[in-house]
Amino acid sequence: MTVRPGRRVAIGVFGGRDVGDDMLQMAEKVGSGIAKLGGILICGGMGGVMEAACIGAKSQDGLTLGILPTSTKEEGNSYLDITIATGMGSARNSIIVRSIDAAIAIDGKYGTLSEIAYCLEMGVNVIGLSTWNIEGVIEANSPEDAVAKAYENI
Amino acid sequence: MTVRPGRRVAIGVFGGRDVGDDMLQMAEKVGSGIAKLGGILICGGMGGVMEAACIGAKSQDGLTLGILPTSTKEEGNSYLDITIATGMGSARNSIIVRSIDAAIAIDGKYGTLSEIAYCLEMGVNVIGLSTWNIEGVIEANSPEDAVAKAYENI
Amino acid sequence: MTVRPGRRVAIGVFGGRDVGDDMLQMAEKVGSGIAKLGGILICGGMGGVMEAACIGAKSQDGLTLGILPTSTKEEGNSYLDITIATGMGSARNSIIVRSIDAAIAIDGKYGTLSEIAYCLEMGVNVIGLSTWNIEGVIEANSPEDAVAKAYENI
Amino acid sequence: MTVRPGRRVAIGVFGGRDVGDDMLQMAEKVGSGIAKLGGILICGGMGGVMEAACIGAKSQDGLTLGILPTSTKEEGNSYLDITIATGMGSARNSIIVRSIDAAIAIDGKYGTLSEIAYCLEMGVNVIGLSTWNIEGVIEANSPEDAVAKAYENI
Repeated sequence: MTVRPGRRVAIGVFGGRDVGDDMLQMAEKVGSGIAKLGGILICGGMGGVMEAACIGAKSQDGLTLGILPTSTKEEGNSYLDITIATGMGSARNSIIVRSIDAAIAIDGKYGTLSEIAYCLEMGVNVIGLSTWNIEGVIEANSPEDAVAKAYENI
Repeated sequence: MTVRPGRRVAIGVFGGRDVGDDMLQMAEKVGSGIAKLGGILICGGMGGVMEAACIGAKSQDGLTLGILPTSTKEEGNSYLDITIATGMGSARNSIIVRSIDAAIAIDGKYGTLSEIAYCLEMGVNVIGLSTWNIEGVIEANSPEDAVAKAYENI
Repeated sequence: MTVRPGRRVAIGVFGGRDVGDDMLQMAEKVGSGIAKLGGILICGGMGGVMEAACIGAKSQDGLTLGILPTSTKEEGNSYLDITIATGMGSARNSIIVRSIDAAIAIDGKYGTLSEIAYCLEMGVNVIGLSTWNIEGVIEANSPEDAVAKAYENI
Repeated sequence: MTVRPGRRVAIGVFGGRDVGDDMLQMAEKVGSGIAKLGGILICGGMGGVMEAACIGAKSQDGLTLGILPTSTKEEGNSYLDITIATGMGSARNSIIVRSIDAAIAIDGKYGTLSEIAYCLEMGVNVIGLSTWNIEGVIEANSPEDAVAKAYENI
C-alpha cells in the first residue's frame, strides 16, 4: 500500500466505447463498487464502459474524474465531476495509468490493450473482466470480485 | 459561462516554487477564496505558490488537484486530494490550462510565463498578482480581488 | 500509399532493451534493410533492439531518428542522427506510432506491446518478428521478409 | 557545446502562422542560413514563419523536420523532410524546445511566447528577431545575425 497520506485512493476503469449491454452493466456495478469503498474513479472520460462506470459511481455519490483525449474540457461523458483535458488523444492512456492505484479492464479493443500494457510495464495491477488475455492480468469472475481484487492489489 | 452541467468549476493557480513569504501568503488566501466559492483548485502540484494555495483551499475543505510533472503519483505537495502524474515535465502546463475555467498567476518565473502564454493562446482568462506583465493578463490588486475576477471571467 | 509528397518514408522499429544476441542480429538486419530501401528509421532511441537497428541503418548510410523518453536530447544510443527529446517517458510511444508509415516489432515486453496496440488502434501496419501474438500483427519469418512486408504495407 | 557525437546540430525556428511578408522573408533567410551551416531545421511544421524557414532551408538542400501539433503525419507544410506527429496540439512546444541546440524566434504571438518561455526555463538559448521582449532573449538585428548568434550560443 503506497497511497500517499492525504491523497485519496484512485481506481482506474478501462474499456471500449462500443460494447454490449452486458458489459455496460458490469461496468456500472464496477463503478458503484469503487465508490462504495471510497475510491475516486478515474477513466478516459468518454462513452461506453467509461460512461457506465461513472453512472455507477455517481449512483453512490462517488467522485468521478475523466482524463480526456480531447483538447477541451467540455467534452467527455455527463457523469464526470472533474475533466482533465489533455489534448493528446490516446497518448493520454499513460497518464491515466500513472495516476491510479489499481485498474479494472472490461472488454475493450486496442486502446484498452495499450492501457493494460502500460499498467504491466509500470507495475500497476490490473484486474480483467472479459478482456485481453495478457500474461500479468489478474482475472476476475464478477464486477464485485473485480472491485475486491482491485483494492487488494493496490 | 461554458461550464458543463455536472462538471465542477475548476480554477487554476500558477506560480513559482521559490518565492517570498508575501507571495506565499497571497497564494494561501487565493486558495481559500477559491474553495469558499466551491471551485476545485487545480495546480501543478509542487511546492511554493502551488503548495500554499492548496493549504488555503484545504483550510476551507476545498478539493485540490495537482497535475504533476513527475512520473509517479506519490510526489507533489502534501495538500493534494488527487494527483495526476503526467510524467511529462513542464509539458504538463498545457494540460493544466486546458482543464481550468480561469487562472490566477502569482509571481513566478519562466514556467509561469509558459502557463500564461498557453492561457492567452487558448482563450482562458488569467488574472495576475505581481506576475509577468503580458498583454492580455487581467491585473488584480489583492488575493480577494483576484478570486473575484477569476470567477467573473469564467 | 499515403506518403506526403516531399516527406520521406519512415519505418518504425520496436523492441526491448534486454534481448538476446539472436534478436539483436535480426534488428541489425532490419535496420540495414530499411536504409537500403531509402526509408528513415524511427525508433524509441534507446538500447537493445533499438540500438541494433540503428547500427544496421548507419551501416548503409541511412538516416536514424530516436524519439526519446528522456527530457534531454543528449541521451539515447550513439547511432542516432536526430534525437527528439519528449520528456514524456513511455507516453512517447504514441508519437512514434503517429510518425511512421509502417512498423516492425522484434521481441519486446510490455512497452513493445503498447506500441503494437497503438499501431493497431491507429491503423498503422505492424510486422512481427518473434514478438507478441496479437490479432492484427502481420507475421514475418526473417528480417528480410519483415522489411519487405513493411514496405508492402505502407 | 554539448552536441552529442553522431547527433547532428538542430536549430529551432519559432514564429506565427499569420505574419507579414517582411517576416516571411526574414524567416526564409534564417532557414537558408541554418542549412548552409549544416544544421537541421526543427520547427512546429505548420505555415507562416515555419513554412518560410523550411523553404529557405530546402533551397540550400538542408534537412527539415516538423514537430506537428496534429495527430497525423500527413499534415504540416510541404517543405518538410520528416514529420513527427505528436497529436498533442501546442503541448508539443516543449518537445521542440527539448530537441534543439538553440532557437530563433521571429515575430509570433502567444504560441511563440510559450516556446520562448520553455527555452528560458530549460536553458536553451533563444535569439529574437522582432519578437517578444522577454528578459533572457538575445536580440539580433538581421537574419544573418540571428543565425550567427544561434550557432555561437549552442
